[in-house]
Amino acid sequence: MTPTRLDTTFAALADPTRRAILARLAAGEASVYELAEPFAMSQPAISKHLKVLERAGLISTGQDAQRRPRKLEAAPLAEASQWLENYRKFWGARFSRLDDLLEELKAGERGKRKRTKR
Amino acid sequence: MTPTRLDTTFAALADPTRRAILARLAAGEASVYELAEPFAMSQPAISKHLKVLERAGLISTGQDAQRRPRKLEAAPLAEASQWLENYRKFWGARFSRLDDLLEELKAGERGKRKRTKR
Repeated sequence: MTPTRLDTTFAALADPTRRAILARLAAGEASVYELAEPFAMSQPAISKHLKVLERAGLISTGQDAQRRPRKLEAAPLAEASQWLENYRKFWGARFSRLDDLLEELKAGERGKRKRTKR
Repeated sequence: MTPTRLDTTFAALADPTRRAILARLAAGEASVYELAEPFAMSQPAISKHLKVLERAGLISTGQDAQRRPRKLEAAPLAEASQWLENYRKFWGARFSRLDDLLEELKAGERGKRKRTKR
């Protein structure tokens, strides 16, 4: 069985260093040197993690031939989130958040109508 | 480094059979026999996957001592979804979905007010 994109995405996310790299890249592009710095890890060790992330399509390498900055590619995260979305009803947070939003909107509409009446 | 809950959750989700088992359990409790049926897999092979899911806290075993039905435990999925939530702004679907919802709600409010006027 060839691994699907969800397989490689979830496998790539199953490591704290790789998740930390993605968190760093969420703040902007970074070179391998910059990515290795906060971790007590050699550049080759970081490069291995970057290869896993790259194969999963979670990062790409930018134009600059010298720095070769890595950047976040969020599409696989969106797919993973979409898959988890199917299970949302089992923990209910979404519905309570939507309920909060509806309450806020209703309160806003009531406020607006009152102001219009005056 | 001891693996964190997110590590074991994402690792457990990185397999199509295990995701299919969770999808089946989302429809209700099932015995190992019932879970093995749709897959071209032996019960011991399914049991291995169930062990991974159980260790990740994604399933538990129900009361019935005979059937030992497995059921879905969604809390780790909620945590995984929460983690992915941090990256939502990079794919933007949430915001467009919220915008759609706001539009729908506004249209609904307008419709209600028109009916009230009559």
